[in-house]
Amino acid sequence: MSFWSVSVRIWTVAHSKIINTLKHMKNTPRILILSKGDPHALATSLAREIPEAEILTDPADIQGGPVPYIVAGKPDPGIIASVPGAELILSLNAGIEHLLIPGEVPEQVGIVRLVDPAMTEGMSDWCLATLLSWHRNLPLYRADTTWNRRTEVLSRDRIVTVLGAGTLGSRVARLAALIGFQTRVWSRSGRSVDGAQAFAGFEGLIEATTGADAVINLLPLTPETENVLDENLFGRMAKGGFVSSAGRGPHLVDADLIAALDSGQLNSAALDVFRTEPLPDDDPLNVHPDVLVTPHVSAPTQANSAMRIMAENIRRHQQGKPIAELVDRSKGY
Amino acid sequence: MSFWSVSVRIWTVAHSKIINTLKHMKNTPRILILSKGDPHALATSLAREIPEAEILTDPADIQGGPVPYIVAGKPDPGIIASVPGAELILSLNAGIEHLLIPGEVPEQVGIVRLVDPAMTEGMSDWCLATLLSWHRNLPLYRADTTWNRRTEVLSRDRIVTVLGAGTLGSRVARLAALIGFQTRVWSRSGRSVDGAQAFAGFEGLIEATTGADAVINLLPLTPETENVLDENLFGRMAKGGFVSSAGRGPHLVDADLIAALDSGQLNSAALDVFRTEPLPDDDPLNVHPDVLVTPHVSAPTQANSAMRIMAENIRRHQQGKPIAELVDRSKGY
Repeated sequence: MSFWSVSVRIWTVAHSKIINTLKHMKNTPRILILSKGDPHALATSLAREIPEAEILTDPADIQGGPVPYIVAGKPDPGIIASVPGAELILSLNAGIEHLLIPGEVPEQVGIVRLVDPAMTEGMSDWCLATLLSWHRNLPLYRADTTWNRRTEVLSRDRIVTVLGAGTLGSRVARLAALIGFQTRVWSRSGRSVDGAQAFAGFEGLIEATTGADAVINLLPLTPETENVLDENLFGRMAKGGFVSSAGRGPHLVDADLIAALDSGQLNSAALDVFRTEPLPDDDPLNVHPDVLVTPHVSAPTQANSAMRIMAENIRRHQQGKPIAELVDRSKGY
Repeated sequence: MSFWSVSVRIWTVAHSKIINTLKHMKNTPRILILSKGDPHALATSLAREIPEAEILTDPADIQGGPVPYIVAGKPDPGIIASVPGAELILSLNAGIEHLLIPGEVPEQVGIVRLVDPAMTEGMSDWCLATLLSWHRNLPLYRADTTWNRRTEVLSRDRIVTVLGAGTLGSRVARLAALIGFQTRVWSRSGRSVDGAQAFAGFEGLIEATTGADAVINLLPLTPETENVLDENLFGRMAKGGFVSSAGRGPHLVDADLIAALDSGQLNSAALDVFRTEPLPDDDPLNVHPDVLVTPHVSAPTQANSAMRIMAENIRRHQQGKPIAELVDRSKGY
């Protein structure tokens, strides 16, 4: 075979593959990315996953037809509702409460939470890091250069309650139990987790947190879970306990936490989420010596793996297949 | 049945049980406790486990016959060798290198390491706490009240090498792997651990630590493992790594650690054991900002559970049964 015939043959095969791909595509998806981070980096990642897509990063460019798919961080109010032909919102976050504000996302448009194994792992690492750091008194030892032994407690003698039994909560509860803590896990449905004692419903919450030495919050933010970390919950815990939250800022009643720390009911807290972000330098939570503040880093979105998951969800939607993590608006998550 | 007949019956049953117990005992064990902690508390715990034992807490009281069993912390040199009729030394520690100094414990006397699930759990908690605290930059966030995000790395993207694959090392390696770290475990024999890559022998040590982001030392102290944490090992690790040691002080070349931290080859270290304990307040390790010093608290001996294990070992010895964790002097652990 001559050089030319080989080349032509390769071209022909490649060409027919492209034609076939185009024939099998329901359509070329138009995707708008609304992110205050780096939308161009996300677009590059997404283009690698769906080479045939038309990817827009500026709402000003959406003329020319409907935009069925929107990849959304926390866009300015009203933008999503103004996009014609939207069918699916693919959230860049696990929490989507901002998309459920009335008028933000039309009723007929689906919302998909981002549940990325990489983010789950990151958040679980953060929860275990803050839990174990408190458990073994690391901040006290760090602040003290004398040979001064604190009371060390075994994990088997401490009760850890994880709020939330979704992908995040169940991973943290499972690992806490494997490390050796007496672990409880609470959710609306009472979903069970290996090694942990499961509690259900808002009555179960009282039982789940009574006597707990540590409470780790990984709940979605809904009207029912707002302000869940309040003086009542802190008061039910064992004296000298620890609270960690990687959920959302409004889960916590800030003043109740400060009061519980100052009274000694709680020993310390670790927070990654706040009602106002960035948290002001002089915020009472920021200046309190017993609160570890981290700047919403527990589970940063991992562009490549997130875009892979979104591409998969777009393809499933095009093919009419069911999509995991589609938000149930009646539950709020 | 009258009150009296019931009482007599109870007394008779109790009495015959005592007689039977005495008949079945090979002998009434004499046990000497040598501890600089609280030997009386240990004696109380041990008496609960072996009520028939004669328990001594002062070497001055050993007249009157042989003392086959010695519960030993770190006694002054020469004391053990002076006890007549010693058959078994029951160490209050997992590390027993101080008992292997020539002349300390006569050749024919057995030495049993303390491997207590409670201590194992405590040490594992400490290792994971220090590892995760470094992994998620907690000390940096604690020291900084501005909204300043550090680079966060996923556990799947970090290599953790555990030195030692005994009860302690294998637990830490197994949990590190479950948390998500790329985990390696190194030991003389190359013993395997679920989820971790195993390395054997002193050649394997080079491979196991090359490119490691974190090294956790849980080795026994032997002539081969002394100074294992040195400039060569630190130099093979990935730049910016972390070293944690809950083994023994002489595993670490202190000056090499300080140099590796100061050059930036290492990011930080956590140490629970030192060549001199208590560590002097002005020791270079104590004043270094990147070294977390804890005062040998990673696995404090738990009196009740330790005495239960020792009582079991004494009974097995009396019955001629094999004893777990009997030290192999040729290996040094």
